[in-house]
Amino acid sequence: MQAKIGIIMGSDSDLPVMKEAAEILDHFKIEYELTVVSAHRTPKRLNDYAQTAAAKGLKVIIAGAGGAAHLPGMVAAVSNLPVIGVPIKTSKLSGLDSLYSIVQMPPGVPVATVAINGAQNAALLAVQILALNNQDLEQKQQEYRQEMEAKVLKTAAKLEEQGYQNYLERSAKFAD
Amino acid sequence: MQAKIGIIMGSDSDLPVMKEAAEILDHFKIEYELTVVSAHRTPKRLNDYAQTAAAKGLKVIIAGAGGAAHLPGMVAAVSNLPVIGVPIKTSKLSGLDSLYSIVQMPPGVPVATVAINGAQNAALLAVQILALNNQDLEQKQQEYRQEMEAKVLKTAAKLEEQGYQNYLERSAKFAD
Amino acid sequence: MQAKIGIIMGSDSDLPVMKEAAEILDHFKIEYELTVVSAHRTPKRLNDYAQTAAAKGLKVIIAGAGGAAHLPGMVAAVSNLPVIGVPIKTSKLSGLDSLYSIVQMPPGVPVATVAINGAQNAALLAVQILALNNQDLEQKQQEYRQEMEAKVLKTAAKLEEQGYQNYLERSAKFAD
Amino acid sequence: MQAKIGIIMGSDSDLPVMKEAAEILDHFKIEYELTVVSAHRTPKRLNDYAQTAAAKGLKVIIAGAGGAAHLPGMVAAVSNLPVIGVPIKTSKLSGLDSLYSIVQMPPGVPVATVAINGAQNAALLAVQILALNNQDLEQKQQEYRQEMEAKVLKTAAKLEEQGYQNYLERSAKFAD
Amino acid sequence: MQAKIGIIMGSDSDLPVMKEAAEILDHFKIEYELTVVSAHRTPKRLNDYAQTAAAKGLKVIIAGAGGAAHLPGMVAAVSNLPVIGVPIKTSKLSGLDSLYSIVQMPPGVPVATVAINGAQNAALLAVQILALNNQDLEQKQQEYRQEMEAKVLKTAAKLEEQGYQNYLERSAKFAD
Amino acid sequence: MQAKIGIIMGSDSDLPVMKEAAEILDHFKIEYELTVVSAHRTPKRLNDYAQTAAAKGLKVIIAGAGGAAHLPGMVAAVSNLPVIGVPIKTSKLSGLDSLYSIVQMPPGVPVATVAINGAQNAALLAVQILALNNQDLEQKQQEYRQEMEAKVLKTAAKLEEQGYQNYLERSAKFAD
Amino acid sequence: MQAKIGIIMGSDSDLPVMKEAAEILDHFKIEYELTVVSAHRTPKRLNDYAQTAAAKGLKVIIAGAGGAAHLPGMVAAVSNLPVIGVPIKTSKLSGLDSLYSIVQMPPGVPVATVAINGAQNAALLAVQILALNNQDLEQKQQEYRQEMEAKVLKTAAKLEEQGYQNYLERSAKFAD
Amino acid sequence: MQAKIGIIMGSDSDLPVMKEAAEILDHFKIEYELTVVSAHRTPKRLNDYAQTAAAKGLKVIIAGAGGAAHLPGMVAAVSNLPVIGVPIKTSKLSGLDSLYSIVQMPPGVPVATVAINGAQNAALLAVQILALNNQDLEQKQQEYRQEMEAKVLKTAAKLEEQGYQNYLERSAKFAD
Repeated sequence: MQAKIGIIMGSDSDLPVMKEAAEILDHFKIEYELTVVSAHRTPKRLNDYAQTAAAKGLKVIIAGAGGAAHLPGMVAAVSNLPVIGVPIKTSKLSGLDSLYSIVQMPPGVPVATVAINGAQNAALLAVQILALNNQDLEQKQQEYRQEMEAKVLKTAAKLEEQGYQNYLERSAKFAD
Repeated sequence: MQAKIGIIMGSDSDLPVMKEAAEILDHFKIEYELTVVSAHRTPKRLNDYAQTAAAKGLKVIIAGAGGAAHLPGMVAAVSNLPVIGVPIKTSKLSGLDSLYSIVQMPPGVPVATVAINGAQNAALLAVQILALNNQDLEQKQQEYRQEMEAKVLKTAAKLEEQGYQNYLERSAKFAD
Repeated sequence: MQAKIGIIMGSDSDLPVMKEAAEILDHFKIEYELTVVSAHRTPKRLNDYAQTAAAKGLKVIIAGAGGAAHLPGMVAAVSNLPVIGVPIKTSKLSGLDSLYSIVQMPPGVPVATVAINGAQNAALLAVQILALNNQDLEQKQQEYRQEMEAKVLKTAAKLEEQGYQNYLERSAKFAD
Repeated sequence: MQAKIGIIMGSDSDLPVMKEAAEILDHFKIEYELTVVSAHRTPKRLNDYAQTAAAKGLKVIIAGAGGAAHLPGMVAAVSNLPVIGVPIKTSKLSGLDSLYSIVQMPPGVPVATVAINGAQNAALLAVQILALNNQDLEQKQQEYRQEMEAKVLKTAAKLEEQGYQNYLERSAKFAD
Repeated sequence: MQAKIGIIMGSDSDLPVMKEAAEILDHFKIEYELTVVSAHRTPKRLNDYAQTAAAKGLKVIIAGAGGAAHLPGMVAAVSNLPVIGVPIKTSKLSGLDSLYSIVQMPPGVPVATVAINGAQNAALLAVQILALNNQDLEQKQQEYRQEMEAKVLKTAAKLEEQGYQNYLERSAKFAD
Repeated sequence: MQAKIGIIMGSDSDLPVMKEAAEILDHFKIEYELTVVSAHRTPKRLNDYAQTAAAKGLKVIIAGAGGAAHLPGMVAAVSNLPVIGVPIKTSKLSGLDSLYSIVQMPPGVPVATVAINGAQNAALLAVQILALNNQDLEQKQQEYRQEMEAKVLKTAAKLEEQGYQNYLERSAKFAD
Repeated sequence: MQAKIGIIMGSDSDLPVMKEAAEILDHFKIEYELTVVSAHRTPKRLNDYAQTAAAKGLKVIIAGAGGAAHLPGMVAAVSNLPVIGVPIKTSKLSGLDSLYSIVQMPPGVPVATVAINGAQNAALLAVQILALNNQDLEQKQQEYRQEMEAKVLKTAAKLEEQGYQNYLERSAKFAD
Repeated sequence: MQAKIGIIMGSDSDLPVMKEAAEILDHFKIEYELTVVSAHRTPKRLNDYAQTAAAKGLKVIIAGAGGAAHLPGMVAAVSNLPVIGVPIKTSKLSGLDSLYSIVQMPPGVPVATVAINGAQNAALLAVQILALNNQDLEQKQQEYRQEMEAKVLKTAAKLEEQGYQNYLERSAKFAD
């Protein structure tokens, strides 16, 4: 089946973060393609990718990049599709450089920016966008939220029941 | 006609920024509603707004807020619609507080964050999302981009032709 | 006995920090309840918690949260009780995002913010507030301060007596 | 009548900010005293002020300071009363220096920190604390919140009715 | 004569800063071309510009941009010429966003970054590069430095002779 | 008489800040010399100044600089005298660049750094150093502190007597 | 053969970063010299180094420094050669201090600044400068870029072929 | 013999940093006393320490503190002696909070601030101050600088002789 979401990243070193986007889309059974596109090392590839994205059926592009993170903004400059930018945490400026480079786009060319290393939310945002015209997906999405809520409620109940000392001890035990 | 986009802001002091979102939607002839919802002063209103947004036909919510900017994130917590957050520039921390409060959402509840005071891009992002299922809008959107490009090319041509000194002098004259 | 202080946090991953608040209240024999309330994953629970807090006898709410830390501010928006916010240190922005999200509240809805990871001080502040109408507690609080002072004086005396080299060597030995 | 709240500030240049605390207390008819105490220029006065505060009947101290803002923390070191710190905006570091100096207190000595220039919220926090043992004040406080809410709802209604263009034009006219 | 330096900027609003680069090159009688190229609004133009730069005889490209300042980095990705980036001061983040976006390039694609709004230094750096193979230019460059030094020495002498009070008064008079 | 303090600055644009150091020394009747030395434009002059400073009788050097503020650190590298650095506020990074460049000296070569634009305190620190071997000066210095304290006490008394509203009104009147 | 590039650093603790510059120059078979010059501990050596650099045949100087990083700026103040500054990451301020100290040079004395720890790019920038008058080097440089591009394309192909799960597992295996 | 320098710190956890000041003074055979004084936990002790410092013969006070680091500023407020402040690195804000709290003192009360964790330089600055009236000490200080210079020159020679690869390998071997 044709991919609906493109997940790209500047380097395979971003994969441990960006795979969380893929896992969310796997969960929602949404077709996606995932690859490496470097704005600085493969500018032609970036251009080709962005120019053909809509024609080949992509609806949303999720782009992760770190440092002088130009990938999301340049894809957004070439393609008219919604682009979601994931600022990757960097070892020097903790991802503040990535965040500023991605979010501070000039009027005319938006990038939907999520939290530093927020690949999971990038995918959930893509799901929300697709769900606008897909009742089935909208349903699944509501269930996802309900499960998330239920999980917090369960944690809360357990913590209240056990008291914080027992709770922390048991968590430590399970972590062994 | 039923509004497709909800534009909300924490205070009417945000209006000079947020009106740029309305102007973009006016340009694209997209129905929207625009109002004030304060996360901190009207939490019930926030709840009601977010809970009824999808049912009354909204597809995307654009929320602007400054300082401890909780409005976009709390709307995103209650509604399943895509929420676009606009960090408003503040007089003390220049909008860095707004940016962090909006973009650093935890896994599970995304907010699509644009630049500080980036209300125009928030609306363009909403247009991109609606255009995924609206060929007419997609067409208009491409024209918008082409006009934007043409305008830069014209500026460039004028600057190259006149030289920077003449260009600056004439700009100054028109500004009088 | 009825709890006087509510300690809440956005996630059980905040517990290793927030338990220090509980330990202080244990020391002062003040009844408290401690649980997880997520602003973003359980907005209804947040609402219920804040709305019923005063009626069930809580006097002060201590709320810890990290990142786009909306929990303390939203509880303060719904409840009229004093809310003390604890910005949790984050792995990406070191808790600066948490601090800004909690402290930069708009006029009308205060959150009493303490240091990043300052759960212990949050509890001491709650004790100070309760002590305003509880002479016994005020007495205990003064003793706590005196013990704190005495401990520093003892450390100082030991350091002066031993000299810094011996002092550091013996500390290292005890740490083995 | 005896003052219940002490409002102090490091310099009379902080008065245009700190007077907002006084105005709130005036509104709630709470007795207060307001004066200048400089941690660095009048350390003896600081000591005296903090040592006698509780005995003369003060319940809460609101302290505003800018730059290396030591006033709130040093008052909190000497007095056992709850101290609310107001970081004053500075011309060089926008109040970030004030904020860090006030909020990052070590374990044992809390300062309840509000937003940069947040004197109004400092007073509202003090009201919340006093209201814990004063039903009349609690009642007034709820009314204050309701009026605040009503004001936002009225603004929202006006904005929705007039549309943003008319609303902005009329605001501009009234500002003339 | 063929231009040796290309001066480009993301928008004509950057011209008041970037013209300082042109003025330096005018002083050194170095041929240059100056125009607007927007990374985000005219990505094709950016590509064309960068791809043809070397062939048409340019030796160095000076690129100024603000916010998510992708222009210098993308030109450097496409062209092999030395690219000098000028971070333009922005009204929201003072140019910190521009600086990070320009300087934090990944290994493999350098951008020679100068100070925020440092267009003058960008041009002087280009002169230094050209002077490596142009003795005449090297000579002029040394004279430029000597004049700069002489000017400081003259200022110093005047200040020492007049004393700071007279010096400030006379400066104020000339400024009238 | 021979100057005891050298006041230098990178540019005469720093004079409106640095003159405050001179005014303090005038008050204490301490001989000083004041001039411009640019680390970057007159490196030879910097070298000469630092190398001859001790021999010609200077005891302390006060150096003000902005941006990549190398002047204080380089003077400290060449001379063995105590060097006091004044970070000058800059229009782009508010003096944070100046502060970091001056204060973060490596082990071996200290610069005594004061607040951004803190030229007055730089001079007072120099006075404290000279006063260590000058009883007369120590006496004057104590009087200076007492006057400073008295001035705050007078302000406080006036404010307490008049109330904040009258106080602000009268201040406004005098400012007319 | 005579060195064309000088690589200097403030301390041998910078060598693990700065050696990456040497490795690039080794790759391009460009002669260089590499040594330690401390602006603060060996100011005379700095002066000598910078004054003789051009005469002994150096074309570009690459200078790495951390903290109050004065080395690149002071070399640029004394020598007319292009100076490339490498801000070294520091344990306290992550290299932000180094970056500001190096990049914020005043008008008249440029330093070509690269990313924090960006020694590799410093060398590539030097190669670009030398290649302006060396067709052989320009050729090699293009090949370097093509190899870099090819490497990314290969990574992308492998990732697309294997899928992200297999790719990560195999990477983990190779890392053992 | 009577101590000339007082070294104080807010907590014994600062000792691993502050002992470097003691080691420098040991090297120069300058008498000092070293102890713990907490501004917040032992405000009386702080007051006593600062008030008696000059009378008991101290010439300079070196004060290290972290977070809301009030110790140096409050000692400077009470005592007329030169106070040197050492901002201690913190786990949350890397010592930026300590730096701002110490360096941003208001006009009238200076603190001579050194780098984050710069205890060694604090002591060297104290030595410079004492050496102004002690030729013997001035002599030793010059020797200290010469040894420092010699050490760098030796490192440089070794690195130049061995080449960076051998140098790094041998360093690694010695580190085993």
